[in-house]
Amino acid sequence: MPAVLDKLASLGIQLPAAPKAVANYVPAVVAGNLVIVSGQLPMKDGALAYKGYLGNDVSVEDGYAAARQCAINGLAALAGVIDGDWDRVKQVVRVGGFVASASGFTDQPKVINGASDFLVEVFGEAGRHARAAVGVGELPLGAAVEVEFTFLLG
Amino acid sequence: MPAVLDKLASLGIQLPAAPKAVANYVPAVVAGNLVIVSGQLPMKDGALAYKGYLGNDVSVEDGYAAARQCAINGLAALAGVIDGDWDRVKQVVRVGGFVASASGFTDQPKVINGASDFLVEVFGEAGRHARAAVGVGELPLGAAVEVEFTFLLG
Amino acid sequence: MPAVLDKLASLGIQLPAAPKAVANYVPAVVAGNLVIVSGQLPMKDGALAYKGYLGNDVSVEDGYAAARQCAINGLAALAGVIDGDWDRVKQVVRVGGFVASASGFTDQPKVINGASDFLVEVFGEAGRHARAAVGVGELPLGAAVEVEFTFLLG
Repeated sequence: MPAVLDKLASLGIQLPAAPKAVANYVPAVVAGNLVIVSGQLPMKDGALAYKGYLGNDVSVEDGYAAARQCAINGLAALAGVIDGDWDRVKQVVRVGGFVASASGFTDQPKVINGASDFLVEVFGEAGRHARAAVGVGELPLGAAVEVEFTFLLG
Repeated sequence: MPAVLDKLASLGIQLPAAPKAVANYVPAVVAGNLVIVSGQLPMKDGALAYKGYLGNDVSVEDGYAAARQCAINGLAALAGVIDGDWDRVKQVVRVGGFVASASGFTDQPKVINGASDFLVEVFGEAGRHARAAVGVGELPLGAAVEVEFTFLLG
Repeated sequence: MPAVLDKLASLGIQLPAAPKAVANYVPAVVAGNLVIVSGQLPMKDGALAYKGYLGNDVSVEDGYAAARQCAINGLAALAGVIDGDWDRVKQVVRVGGFVASASGFTDQPKVINGASDFLVEVFGEAGRHARAAVGVGELPLGAAVEVEFTFLLG
């Protein structure tokens, strides 16, 4: 695994603090060699940065940026369970993307590419993952996008 | 793992019989150290106990109770593949919650807390899990909530 | 595992070529003993074969056929990561089904049975899986159904 933090720095990204558990669930769980990361919203600097519905009041470009922000937050959640040892991360296994979609909006893949492209930017070939992307009616807090992640540790 | 059945008894809960496969799928599958539990509906005494849409005809309180019932049923499904050996259950890994949501309802997390809180009541710290919660338009049989689960065995 | 390719042939099914990655994600990822297959659309001969919404312009019968086609495509994705060694496939672990659903359509299970029945036809008892089936508002390209899969390797 290349130097993930160097790569993030070159992208001008500083990972936020690992999100705190806000209820009886946690940002990420280690299960054997897998890390399951909770569904991430596009929070930035403590606020929800992208609200609304694709196909209505959120553009594909903003949806893409929202999915990228979810992936940044997903890495922060991952960081919280690997003790900073990014060399342990061998593969991005799965991305599950939910896009708040107005009737007739069918470009969910272009939106979730914001997460996928970011993960490959950061992890290279090991960032290529299996993916599901679907359109849903409503997301927590009115978020435009929610993305969950699975990683493989070595 | 504390005595799960004692804990359930102290909560006044007797697990229902492990649900039967109703088609070519099964309530739970063991895959290595993981148990994947099928999406559970809020069935109680053989009938669907919570129907409708959050934000319309189902209150957050009832949605919370529905998610809790899904978790009870999820434990029954888990019980069916661990031969009653609850000490083998090391961690609740993931909760995936789908909430039938009317337009504009964005409190899915408060609903799925019904499952999360129950799992921590029963398993303690090992009950804290990764989670995704989203709002969908329609669920099987008109259920208000559907929840799937992943557990880690020792 | 029985001779999967023989079984497919007896069903008159020739697997399509493993789908190519169309973005920064891939058709399937191997993570330890698990294979995670990306959400499959009902593509057939290079085109989307089933578009629309269950409960509106797509019948349950066509939805069932769409889910079956998703499962065929899921096996093609699986084939791409097991080097043709079908004996390595020990179990179908999970099916995650998303059904594009008009308001009031609650027969998602009957639709996703198209994937479940097919997997048991092909793999026998090892084809019985955990499953979640939900109704969503919109799917990529306007597809009627999207299904993702998890398999266990020996």
